[in-house]
Amino acid sequence: MPKVVDHAARRAELVDAAWRVIAAEGLEAATVRRIAQAAGCTTGLVTHYFESKDDMLVAALREVHRRAGQRMVRHVDGVDIAAVLLEVILDALPMDEDRQLEWKVWLAFWGRAAADERLRQEQQRRYAEWRGLLGKLIRRARPADTAADRRTAVDLIAGAIDGLGIQATLEPAKFTDARLRRAATAIARSAL
Amino acid sequence: MPKVVDHAARRAELVDAAWRVIAAEGLEAATVRRIAQAAGCTTGLVTHYFESKDDMLVAALREVHRRAGQRMVRHVDGVDIAAVLLEVILDALPMDEDRQLEWKVWLAFWGRAAADERLRQEQQRRYAEWRGLLGKLIRRARPADTAADRRTAVDLIAGAIDGLGIQATLEPAKFTDARLRRAATAIARSAL
Repeated sequence: MPKVVDHAARRAELVDAAWRVIAAEGLEAATVRRIAQAAGCTTGLVTHYFESKDDMLVAALREVHRRAGQRMVRHVDGVDIAAVLLEVILDALPMDEDRQLEWKVWLAFWGRAAADERLRQEQQRRYAEWRGLLGKLIRRARPADTAADRRTAVDLIAGAIDGLGIQATLEPAKFTDARLRRAATAIARSAL
Repeated sequence: MPKVVDHAARRAELVDAAWRVIAAEGLEAATVRRIAQAAGCTTGLVTHYFESKDDMLVAALREVHRRAGQRMVRHVDGVDIAAVLLEVILDALPMDEDRQLEWKVWLAFWGRAAADERLRQEQQRRYAEWRGLLGKLIRRARPADTAADRRTAVDLIAGAIDGLGIQATLEPAKFTDARLRRAATAIARSAL
């Protein structure tokens, strides 16, 4: 009887190995050999699932984005929109080790996307989803606003989260939970 | 008579070539050979001034930071602190081609700094200067604030500029001047 292979599960394992290597060791370290080692498989299997480094990076970013999205949906049904917005902002920030790793994947991705059209398109798709979620929250918070005002609010919130996330990822000792929480509260307040 | 070589000027030319190659073609493309080609010199000269790729990246980032700093000081002596803050924020954003290139150097740098301690230290030094400048403006705008409140305001402004700068660098067609100006105005207002 032939061995039954669950391709989706195997691919998920490789993606998991890939994003953790990218995050912990940097994109340059994330060679096919290193991913295979981290996933406990052959290099042939890695190249079977990912044609190129960019394929791997895109898959890693999608996984990081999916994980964040799963966390976000837990918050959005709350009744108090100010509390919901604060929870979403806090959840997006690198306040624990796993989210710090997720942020490092974003940093690696942005670094490469600046000079790569395909990666920029991936960024645009992921960001459209993220801004869509923030936009719905702003619409609930400020139903009378014009579309342009809501867009500006989303630009400010999404921007502040990203910039703060970068600084906290690169200087984790300085950006304590208390400091990030203060900043998150200020960001939420600026949008309400 | 021996040929007189102006080392500082020569190094400055190489740094200029380096940051433009990093910005336009990506960090991976910024090989010694490519920098030499862009600067119109030998590869030996490039390796004479930069021992490693990280050396080159740090030099490129310092140059980008220096250029931004030179622009900023033109604004800070203004009497109207709200106007000064808005000008500083607008000046930091990628609103023309040169500043878009500068932002791409920051993106390349952050992507690599996530997994490199020496680059992270460089980031911390550059950020301390930048936050210092913003902190002085906030102190002028809100003299009665506690130090913690001022720090939160700086976190929000610096964060929003970085996040917005990333998005505008990666999606320049979407982030028009008018849109960036609206966002900059909202950032400045949130801090006043």
